[in-house]
Amino acid sequence: MTGFATTERPLDRGTSDRLPSVAARLACRAGSTTTTAGVANGFVQGNLAILPEKLAASFHRFCQFNPKPCPVIGMSDVGDPHIPSLGIDLDIRTDLPRYRVWRDGEVVEEPPDIMVHWRDDLVAFVLGCSFSFEEALMADDLPIRHIERKLRVPMYRTNIACAPSGPFAGPMVVSMRPFKPADAIRAVQITSRFPAVHGAPVHLGHPRSIGIADIAKPDYGDAVPVEADEIPVFWACGVTPQAVIAAAKLPFAITHAPGLMLVTDLRNKQLAVL
Amino acid sequence: MTGFATTERPLDRGTSDRLPSVAARLACRAGSTTTTAGVANGFVQGNLAILPEKLAASFHRFCQFNPKPCPVIGMSDVGDPHIPSLGIDLDIRTDLPRYRVWRDGEVVEEPPDIMVHWRDDLVAFVLGCSFSFEEALMADDLPIRHIERKLRVPMYRTNIACAPSGPFAGPMVVSMRPFKPADAIRAVQITSRFPAVHGAPVHLGHPRSIGIADIAKPDYGDAVPVEADEIPVFWACGVTPQAVIAAAKLPFAITHAPGLMLVTDLRNKQLAVL
Repeated sequence: MTGFATTERPLDRGTSDRLPSVAARLACRAGSTTTTAGVANGFVQGNLAILPEKLAASFHRFCQFNPKPCPVIGMSDVGDPHIPSLGIDLDIRTDLPRYRVWRDGEVVEEPPDIMVHWRDDLVAFVLGCSFSFEEALMADDLPIRHIERKLRVPMYRTNIACAPSGPFAGPMVVSMRPFKPADAIRAVQITSRFPAVHGAPVHLGHPRSIGIADIAKPDYGDAVPVEADEIPVFWACGVTPQAVIAAAKLPFAITHAPGLMLVTDLRNKQLAVL
Repeated sequence: MTGFATTERPLDRGTSDRLPSVAARLACRAGSTTTTAGVANGFVQGNLAILPEKLAASFHRFCQFNPKPCPVIGMSDVGDPHIPSLGIDLDIRTDLPRYRVWRDGEVVEEPPDIMVHWRDDLVAFVLGCSFSFEEALMADDLPIRHIERKLRVPMYRTNIACAPSGPFAGPMVVSMRPFKPADAIRAVQITSRFPAVHGAPVHLGHPRSIGIADIAKPDYGDAVPVEADEIPVFWACGVTPQAVIAAAKLPFAITHAPGLMLVTDLRNKQLAVL
């Protein structure tokens, strides 16, 4: 883990079964396959990557080398489907709504659980996601365009190369949110407090400088307008590790399905470093 | 004072006479009238405003209402020329290189000391200045264009109205430093730690949005170029209170002469809130 030190806090076993995050996981375990957007507000949701042990070390180093797109907030022991630091009862094989099983760089299945795919050599990584910092931005009354318009956040492949590790290499993917300048400054401040969920922006104002030819044509998600008096602000995005895993054409990997995340018992506000 | 809480630390009386800041003040006291730029690196320099007691309360509220342009780092008692929190032996009447004496909104004299102007009803305010945060930016290897080119920082009157207090009112003056986007983000982070010296920027990227018609024509200081891949970043500026004091056309006030500041025994790094 990358030392954000939020995963070592003991959870209250006596009350954890009453948490909305626990209810969300139990719903998944019972078969729910709906989006986790808006579920268990206030609780940290995470991106999932599961790799065989021999690739997991390289991937972990990749995360260490590239903490902004790949902030590790939880990690399983080898072959252990539990990550108690993120939820006492959490079972990574059943507690997400839907998974993607990858073989040789292709998605071969999108099952609602991975019981039949689990192996004793698998390691699960949970990576912070932008839902947490968006909550902090909205709590400060900053408007988030794609949420207001009920769209997916626009995401772009950049010319910023991630530091490679073993088979894992590729460009950083960024998400974009437009803000008026004073709000952009405030957004830098707020997200700087949350390194475990991508932290401060990596860029603002000049999309071409990071290889984005047309802000109106995102590589993932939906386009949102940037008004003339606004600044496009770019954060490292959790799609980066998925894109890197796909590009590595690994024999076997499992991730979450887009938008269908792991809901943890960590609270977003616990991730603030200051 | 605005509660930045840095001025209440006891100084080491035993060693203070060896500090370069003390040496700088003693030089002023002995008649030196040269700029304080580059003097006693690492020590906080401050803007000075001295007002009669009956106006001082309004001005203090003005500073409280407008902490970004007017961060109070030290303040004398009424009629007391000493500010021990900024320097044990400090005498505000003699320890700056040069002063400006204002009557009815006009500079009537620029003396090297104000012994003959001091009165029992005067109150001295020392306000943080950008030298401190520029040191922090340079310590992080961020290039500062006007310093590299040995120019004065460009400053602009904006359309951002300060919150008024009594006779004190007017637009915020800002200073501008151009940065590449990633450096602009880092500059927001670094200066956010220093609210006592203007803190985070107030604006970036769209000069017209804050009433700056032509970035190449500053209202004070020297123009510096902003390259196509750079963002102009604007900080609240300590010229604001001087401009407000001038506009108020007070019967009597004293300030420092531009660039000839009070050197204090506070260290810049002591001003960091985090």
